[in-house]
Amino acid sequence: MRDNFHADLDALNGQLVAMSRSVADAMRTASAALVDFDPDRADAVIAGDSDINALQFGVDDRVLEIMTRRQPVASDLRFMLSCIRITTDLERMGDMASHVAKLARRVASNGALTQTVPIFRSMAAAAGRIADKTTQILATRDQLDATQLDLDDDEMDALYARLLGELASGWEHGAEAAVDVAMLGRSYERYSDHAVRIGHQVVYLVTGDIHLDRPQ
Amino acid sequence: MRDNFHADLDALNGQLVAMSRSVADAMRTASAALVDFDPDRADAVIAGDSDINALQFGVDDRVLEIMTRRQPVASDLRFMLSCIRITTDLERMGDMASHVAKLARRVASNGALTQTVPIFRSMAAAAGRIADKTTQILATRDQLDATQLDLDDDEMDALYARLLGELASGWEHGAEAAVDVAMLGRSYERYSDHAVRIGHQVVYLVTGDIHLDRPQ
Repeated sequence: MRDNFHADLDALNGQLVAMSRSVADAMRTASAALVDFDPDRADAVIAGDSDINALQFGVDDRVLEIMTRRQPVASDLRFMLSCIRITTDLERMGDMASHVAKLARRVASNGALTQTVPIFRSMAAAAGRIADKTTQILATRDQLDATQLDLDDDEMDALYARLLGELASGWEHGAEAAVDVAMLGRSYERYSDHAVRIGHQVVYLVTGDIHLDRPQ
Repeated sequence: MRDNFHADLDALNGQLVAMSRSVADAMRTASAALVDFDPDRADAVIAGDSDINALQFGVDDRVLEIMTRRQPVASDLRFMLSCIRITTDLERMGDMASHVAKLARRVASNGALTQTVPIFRSMAAAAGRIADKTTQILATRDQLDATQLDLDDDEMDALYARLLGELASGWEHGAEAAVDVAMLGRSYERYSDHAVRIGHQVVYLVTGDIHLDRPQ
C-alpha cells in the first residue's frame, strides 16, 4: 500500500520533469526563431503552449486524485502542494517562451533587432542552461544545483540590464522597436525568475527550510 | 467536528478576501503615485509587497495545517487547492502593483509621461474596478460577477493596445521613456489577467466546470 503510494508520488514527479523538458524545448525553439530570424519556427511554440497548459492540469488532477484516494501524511501533502506551485511556475515559463515566439515573429523583418542579437544569443544560452538545470533539479532534488540557479539568474539580470542600457543610450530605431526589444528581454528575465522560484521550492522540500524568498 | 471544519474553511476564505483587499489597495496607491506624479506615495507600496507575500504564506500554511488535521473530502480538497492557486495570482497582482510603484518613482520627473496620463487614468480606474470585483467574488462566489471580469479585462486589453498605439505613431520622447510607458501598461494588463484567472477559479469551484482557460 505504502509502496503503491510512493509509486504514485514518483509518477507525479515524473510529470513535473516531463513538463520542465517541454518548457525547456519551447524556449530553445523560440530563441532559435528569434536570433536566426526564422519566424516559421515560432509557430510550433505558439501552438504548443496549450499542450504545456494541459500538462499542468494533468499534475493538478493527479494531485487531487492521490489526495482523495490516499491519506497522505504532512510531508507528502507538502510535496503535493509544492507540485501545484511548481507547475504554476512551469506554466508561466511556457507562457514566456510563447511570448518570445510571438515577438520573434513580429520582429523578424525588423532590421533594428540586429544590434541586439548578440545579447539575445547570450540570454538564449542562459535560458537554456537554466531550463536544463531546472529539469535536473526536479529529477534529482540536488539542493546545491538548486541554489546555483540563483547565480544563473544573476547573469540573466545582468544581460537584461545591458539590453535596457542599449535602449537608453543612442537607440536609433524608434520607440516601437525599443518596446519589442525590452519586452523580449523581460520575457527571458521572467523565465529565469520562475526557474529560481522552482529551485527554492525544491530546496524547501529537501531541507524543510522556510522559502528562501519568504520575508525574513 | 464538521462545523469546526467549515469554520476553518470560512477562515481560509476570509484570508483570501483580506489578501485581495490588500492587493487592491496596493494598486490604487501605486496608480495615485503614477498619475499624480507623487513618488512618495510609491514607497509604501514597494515596502508593503512583502506583507502581501506573507499573506500568501499564511494561506499556504493554513491549507497544509487543515489538510493534516482533518481528512477533507474531495470537494474540500478542491477548494483548498484552489486557494493555493488563487493566492499565487493575488501575490502576482501585488508584484504588479509594486512594479507600477517602482516605475512611478522612476518616471515622476519625466515630462514624457504627461502625454500618456489620460490612458493611465483609465487603466488605473479599470484596475480599481477589477480588484474590487475580485474581492467581492471571493467573498460571495457570485458566478456572474466572475464571468464579468472577462469584460473588464477586454477593456483593459483595449487600453493597453491604445497605449502601444501611442508609442508606435509619432512618439517623440525617446526609447527609454517608451519602454517605461510600455512596461507600466503591461503591468496593468497582467494585473487584470491574474484577476481573470481568479474569476475562472471561482467559477470552477462553484460549477465544477473545467477551467474556462483549459484547452477545449
